[in-house]
Amino acid sequence: MLETETKHGAEKETGRLEAFSDGVYSIAMTLLVLDLKVPHVNGPGIPGELIRALVAQWPSYLAFVTSFFTILIMWVNHHAMFKLIGKVSRGLMFSNGFLLMMTTVVPFTTGLVAEYLQKPGGRFATAIYCASFVFISVGYNLTWHSAAHNRRLIRSDVPDRAVQTITRNYRFGVPSYLVATACAFINPALSMAIISALWIFWSITPGKE
Amino acid sequence: MLETETKHGAEKETGRLEAFSDGVYSIAMTLLVLDLKVPHVNGPGIPGELIRALVAQWPSYLAFVTSFFTILIMWVNHHAMFKLIGKVSRGLMFSNGFLLMMTTVVPFTTGLVAEYLQKPGGRFATAIYCASFVFISVGYNLTWHSAAHNRRLIRSDVPDRAVQTITRNYRFGVPSYLVATACAFINPALSMAIISALWIFWSITPGKE
Amino acid sequence: MLETETKHGAEKETGRLEAFSDGVYSIAMTLLVLDLKVPHVNGPGIPGELIRALVAQWPSYLAFVTSFFTILIMWVNHHAMFKLIGKVSRGLMFSNGFLLMMTTVVPFTTGLVAEYLQKPGGRFATAIYCASFVFISVGYNLTWHSAAHNRRLIRSDVPDRAVQTITRNYRFGVPSYLVATACAFINPALSMAIISALWIFWSITPGKE
Amino acid sequence: MLETETKHGAEKETGRLEAFSDGVYSIAMTLLVLDLKVPHVNGPGIPGELIRALVAQWPSYLAFVTSFFTILIMWVNHHAMFKLIGKVSRGLMFSNGFLLMMTTVVPFTTGLVAEYLQKPGGRFATAIYCASFVFISVGYNLTWHSAAHNRRLIRSDVPDRAVQTITRNYRFGVPSYLVATACAFINPALSMAIISALWIFWSITPGKE
Repeated sequence: MLETETKHGAEKETGRLEAFSDGVYSIAMTLLVLDLKVPHVNGPGIPGELIRALVAQWPSYLAFVTSFFTILIMWVNHHAMFKLIGKVSRGLMFSNGFLLMMTTVVPFTTGLVAEYLQKPGGRFATAIYCASFVFISVGYNLTWHSAAHNRRLIRSDVPDRAVQTITRNYRFGVPSYLVATACAFINPALSMAIISALWIFWSITPGKE
Repeated sequence: MLETETKHGAEKETGRLEAFSDGVYSIAMTLLVLDLKVPHVNGPGIPGELIRALVAQWPSYLAFVTSFFTILIMWVNHHAMFKLIGKVSRGLMFSNGFLLMMTTVVPFTTGLVAEYLQKPGGRFATAIYCASFVFISVGYNLTWHSAAHNRRLIRSDVPDRAVQTITRNYRFGVPSYLVATACAFINPALSMAIISALWIFWSITPGKE
Repeated sequence: MLETETKHGAEKETGRLEAFSDGVYSIAMTLLVLDLKVPHVNGPGIPGELIRALVAQWPSYLAFVTSFFTILIMWVNHHAMFKLIGKVSRGLMFSNGFLLMMTTVVPFTTGLVAEYLQKPGGRFATAIYCASFVFISVGYNLTWHSAAHNRRLIRSDVPDRAVQTITRNYRFGVPSYLVATACAFINPALSMAIISALWIFWSITPGKE
Repeated sequence: MLETETKHGAEKETGRLEAFSDGVYSIAMTLLVLDLKVPHVNGPGIPGELIRALVAQWPSYLAFVTSFFTILIMWVNHHAMFKLIGKVSRGLMFSNGFLLMMTTVVPFTTGLVAEYLQKPGGRFATAIYCASFVFISVGYNLTWHSAAHNRRLIRSDVPDRAVQTITRNYRFGVPSYLVATACAFINPALSMAIISALWIFWSITPGKE
């Protein structure tokens, strides 16, 4: 334990981890637009063909908007979690890294669902999509556990109640997403309804502000 | 309401939201250069062919410069808006997220205009371009409303006059861009003139510095 | 020597160098996901074909996870190193720049190994992979040397013991990776074992927290 | 003029502009690696073919290393310039934006030279490369002028001598790069020598630290 680990140093540490995470979130969100391609139409009746070509890309637009808001909600939750954290440990850095890695996978799994939504492979694609959120939920729980277990890295001015609320909310994640994954093989629409309900839940729960 | 939400904590919060937004703006601007491709020319009279190949890419250069400055002006305005904001709410995070999402779409819609500028689809492409700014303008108004309504998140040392100036300026956005969108079907050049006039307006209005 | 180089200014300087480095790390990690492509399957028995197409991409997944954690470990070490640094010099900026450049090469060399793992070129690909870490290790040593030689840029409250520990740990890097590179031509699996053992070492050594 | 523009607010402003610029620099540098592609070799004698394929990519490696260090030197200079700036103006934001835009073009012009180095188009490609630095130099001069003219945005504790040194050094840029551009049509090697000499100059001049 270095003498340098004063309150000031600890805050700077947390700031750097947050900035790093924000970097990953903002890049992951901005890269999404690379999947929107200007269609190349060369026939004579261009206006109609351009409209048709743009409309035919609708799964790309759906994937773009869904991925963007999904990662935005995750960022808002990450933000809410780190508001309570005042120190950094190696465990926090690596579990947060796992969470970030699974977050960057979201555009890939979303693209998979968008592509196969109306094809025979749709159930399998939906299952992979839901499974990626099982891992993300594991990432949130690991990150939170490494910070909140015995209040190891929690700021001293944070009331126990606030810590317990997050612990309780995060516990829902893994089982709910596992149920959604299992449902995908029977009824993908039901899976998507569960996933959507959870997004609404995660959008509301980051705590009163 | 946590005890942690002191002035210091609130400032850190705003700082993190700004850094996240800056990340999205800077990445969106830097990704633009990916659309400039080195032309592959292999014929015998290479110098002339290289020049012709580079000149033929002029819509890419136009789209690059236009998109870059468009996003730069939006960043300067975002900067001016957040200078007055001292706290963060969930509403601000999500409306700002919507604004950022629509901002990342600009390279796509600009590319669309550059590609179809001189083709029959030009009117339709221009209409989509203008429409994207209707949404961006909605995003600015939502973000500003969630901060400035009843001065909810405005710093206490900011005079009412400064808040009202931004509110008044932003009100122009949505109707002006709607007019530009409608014009696109009749006279795309007029649409582009309206859009350009608005850029000059947005470049000047961020407030005296 | 400007009067402006007070303690406050020096801290801001270091902060900017860290933020810049964090930017490179987070972008390098997030770009990795661009190599995961949604497979386009159009045959009649799509579910089976989709599964086969996804499974066939396993070298991409392996490269993705390996590169992500490799860069994450390097970031954690960079973080631990800069915790002790309180000032910035031109030498630090350029040696840190060299380190960052070699770091961004990791996805390329990892992709090379993933592609040629089970082909005749595997030994050569493994050697290149190991060689890239020789250069990264040189980068860490140069960066650390430019900061720690005569404690030039080390914060005054950091004990000598902490400085010496990092110096000692980094000294292992170059010779170990050279051995791994040489091994690659005889036994690539042994090279990979050495590399993996070193990752575990680097994950543990950033110092007690 | 808002009451909010106190010393604290001004510093936060500058910090945000620096962070935004750092974002653009770090992304521009990290995107460079996307041009290094894993070669796909499928013939029987793979080791030899893989080596040949990797060697044949040498212009990519040259462009990668050159672009990386070029942008790194520009970042170090940007850093040195902003160390003296304590306030932000709209003029600074837009001239800095122009500078950043031209900076992101470097990978494109470098790629052009790497591709046509040994072909008849080499002179023309070299001229474009040099011309891009004319614009970058204009960007630095505009940015510095908008900050240093009458010391408008210079921190009060910075001595006049430090301001004059930067002004004097930057004045060399535009004419030197214009000469290099003109030389390209006669002797591209001489152009490259001038450019290289200037890089060494810019690496050394950011001021004593």
